[in-house]
Amino acid sequence: MADANNEHLVRSDDPQHPANLICELCRKFYTLGWVTGTGGGTSIRHHDHIYIAPSGVQKELMAPSDMFVLDFNSRDYLRKPTSLKPSACTPLFLAAFTKRGAGCCIHTHSQWAVLVTLLVERDFGADACFEIEMIEQIKGIPKGYGKQGYLGYFDKLRIPIIENTAHEEDLAETLEQAMENYPDTYAVLVRRHGIYVWGDNVQKAKTQCESLDYIFQLAVEMKKLGLPWTK
Amino acid sequence: MADANNEHLVRSDDPQHPANLICELCRKFYTLGWVTGTGGGTSIRHHDHIYIAPSGVQKELMAPSDMFVLDFNSRDYLRKPTSLKPSACTPLFLAAFTKRGAGCCIHTHSQWAVLVTLLVERDFGADACFEIEMIEQIKGIPKGYGKQGYLGYFDKLRIPIIENTAHEEDLAETLEQAMENYPDTYAVLVRRHGIYVWGDNVQKAKTQCESLDYIFQLAVEMKKLGLPWTK
Amino acid sequence: MADANNEHLVRSDDPQHPANLICELCRKFYTLGWVTGTGGGTSIRHHDHIYIAPSGVQKELMAPSDMFVLDFNSRDYLRKPTSLKPSACTPLFLAAFTKRGAGCCIHTHSQWAVLVTLLVERDFGADACFEIEMIEQIKGIPKGYGKQGYLGYFDKLRIPIIENTAHEEDLAETLEQAMENYPDTYAVLVRRHGIYVWGDNVQKAKTQCESLDYIFQLAVEMKKLGLPWTK
Amino acid sequence: MADANNEHLVRSDDPQHPANLICELCRKFYTLGWVTGTGGGTSIRHHDHIYIAPSGVQKELMAPSDMFVLDFNSRDYLRKPTSLKPSACTPLFLAAFTKRGAGCCIHTHSQWAVLVTLLVERDFGADACFEIEMIEQIKGIPKGYGKQGYLGYFDKLRIPIIENTAHEEDLAETLEQAMENYPDTYAVLVRRHGIYVWGDNVQKAKTQCESLDYIFQLAVEMKKLGLPWTK
Repeated sequence: MADANNEHLVRSDDPQHPANLICELCRKFYTLGWVTGTGGGTSIRHHDHIYIAPSGVQKELMAPSDMFVLDFNSRDYLRKPTSLKPSACTPLFLAAFTKRGAGCCIHTHSQWAVLVTLLVERDFGADACFEIEMIEQIKGIPKGYGKQGYLGYFDKLRIPIIENTAHEEDLAETLEQAMENYPDTYAVLVRRHGIYVWGDNVQKAKTQCESLDYIFQLAVEMKKLGLPWTK
Repeated sequence: MADANNEHLVRSDDPQHPANLICELCRKFYTLGWVTGTGGGTSIRHHDHIYIAPSGVQKELMAPSDMFVLDFNSRDYLRKPTSLKPSACTPLFLAAFTKRGAGCCIHTHSQWAVLVTLLVERDFGADACFEIEMIEQIKGIPKGYGKQGYLGYFDKLRIPIIENTAHEEDLAETLEQAMENYPDTYAVLVRRHGIYVWGDNVQKAKTQCESLDYIFQLAVEMKKLGLPWTK
Repeated sequence: MADANNEHLVRSDDPQHPANLICELCRKFYTLGWVTGTGGGTSIRHHDHIYIAPSGVQKELMAPSDMFVLDFNSRDYLRKPTSLKPSACTPLFLAAFTKRGAGCCIHTHSQWAVLVTLLVERDFGADACFEIEMIEQIKGIPKGYGKQGYLGYFDKLRIPIIENTAHEEDLAETLEQAMENYPDTYAVLVRRHGIYVWGDNVQKAKTQCESLDYIFQLAVEMKKLGLPWTK
Repeated sequence: MADANNEHLVRSDDPQHPANLICELCRKFYTLGWVTGTGGGTSIRHHDHIYIAPSGVQKELMAPSDMFVLDFNSRDYLRKPTSLKPSACTPLFLAAFTKRGAGCCIHTHSQWAVLVTLLVERDFGADACFEIEMIEQIKGIPKGYGKQGYLGYFDKLRIPIIENTAHEEDLAETLEQAMENYPDTYAVLVRRHGIYVWGDNVQKAKTQCESLDYIFQLAVEMKKLGLPWTK
């Protein structure tokens, strides 16, 4: 009998296989508070296959067999777990893969990210961009797509903030617009919602997401203590 | 010899068996700070059997053999561990199973839930209801009992708050009243005490409880930062 | 050859054996932030044997062979690991065993406990007592030594605070005085230092310590939010 | 075939071997939030061999084979993993080994350390030193290099703060200057960056780092509550 639903695409003993890696990452993200409830999501591009965690499941309990697999070129599902729903983040993940050549994209509901979007709203009105400078951890963020190296300590980190929409998939257009407006960014904050972070590969997406979350947490604590984010 | 205390009801190799699942959930809830000391509790309905964690035990160390089992129809104990006390939460769990057809009910002493009840007290006087809107995680909460789907981003989340009583079982009446007053709610906050959250099944009760706790934590942090919960 | 250092006192396959239990508890306490660095300590009375964790070691890495064993009546060491120092908490643990018939005593450097002692200092001047009421978790604390049952929701929890001294063993006298002044208390806070909590047995000492820590954390957060501890 | 890259230096079944220990420590430091992203680092001196974690890797996922090994006297690399970059912290670790006879040096990006440097900046202007007194945990810090024993409860803890630079290796000079100015210190804070902590051996470096982090966290919370660090 043929492998009708392409089970072979998610079966591997290699812990670095995308189907295994998404499960492992999401277990870690759960302990970090990034994918509480069934929130957040993760996607990995592996050659022409896009692996995506399903919607509406407990992210820390996922199995490789829960993964959706999409063909990068045709956008057809190569594998669709019958009892699960595809992620509403799919068009946003695809934007990172298509427009930025990303190898992995992570979506979190981190409270630090959400609080930062609320603090910018209040402090800077319509200027939809989080800015901070002179924090060592900024050096964990690359200079920009197609550029060599990482931001320096004296560089200003700027992460665009887009407005949230009723339906997650409707964020795709403004997220792509934010990518155009901020061509160097590796992340887009979504007001009152969370963040999308991508990277050239899984390690970079994860460590950049961690560095940003660290910076957002620090920024919130700075605000509580009356310390400014920029000079 | 007969199985006098119905031991078979709590013996299973299946990790999804209610007696095993309550232990596993409570280990997780302990790390989340929901069942500190011997606080909080969890109950699962499995057909006509109600499984309930005992009172006054360390919730992260429970074994399946510690579980009480109640008959849903007769309200008789089918199984009573001799050295343990039944949970004072029992009538409140039963309210969720009876009046809302819940499959699982979780009671936590989460500090975020307690703080929210204190902040509503102070800010809104006698209005015993927590309200928040325009937070993505609200979409993790269903629209209401007998309704299809989940709250939207622009919907207002409303969780009733009842006053605490000297004895937990005495909360049953006001909790049932709150269910009447807020027919759509899947949770009731108890002032200076914690929260009861239920769901159609274990996964839904757990993820709804997580989503609410996330929202309460965010709400407390918003208050510290001077950010309003509603427009 | 004789068992010169009474090794048999700390060798057991039973996880409930005091030498094993202290190690297991301290691993848990480390993750709770109670025994950071080499701070804090734990002691269990088992019949006439007092088991005590050593001084100056990483509490999360202890082995049963690191335990000191003291004879309850003679106060002689039955077992002394040669390369380790006995705990400076020893006279304080003994006070709980002797004056309150405790089965276990836990000493933590919990930051919530320390902050509470600082907040009382500032708010109430010389009144060396932490007071809070109408918090459900208070029901996790017993009414008092020799009394039946636990505090009620409407009871006021009162934990005495003693001043810190240069040497930990010098706290014994004022700790015993606090026990006299507050005969019902199961804990004594030490200003700018931490807390001693005891209980009739290991489970009670641990869960009471957790309940108090929960209450202290809540009290600190309440203070940040401008919420009063008592009416 | 010869062991061209001195593989034997990082291969051992002994969990106390430096190459294994650095990996184990960094896994713990990751959960403490000290080495988020690829930040922070750890180095152990073992006789004339200096073991150093590489730059730019996920610290919680390192393997012994990722370690660099430097000869203490010649400063030549005895082992260089081909695909990894040596740590920019190397000259700073060497300062601790050379000028203070340290056996281990830990560099963290702890947010508590960073916040403390920001609070001193604001409160005390150009006085680049964190000061606190009368906190029991101070007793976890030694009196000074070449001195016997630990700080007392009534001693003032003073940790110098140096200004951050664009490149981590450029911190070496001011770090060494701070060691001269504060000959008793076992740590140097780096403004908007983190901290370097060393100790006579691994256990001391780790527990001193934990004690300092505890004190920094407490200090930040004290500031939020309006409590002074010194009289």
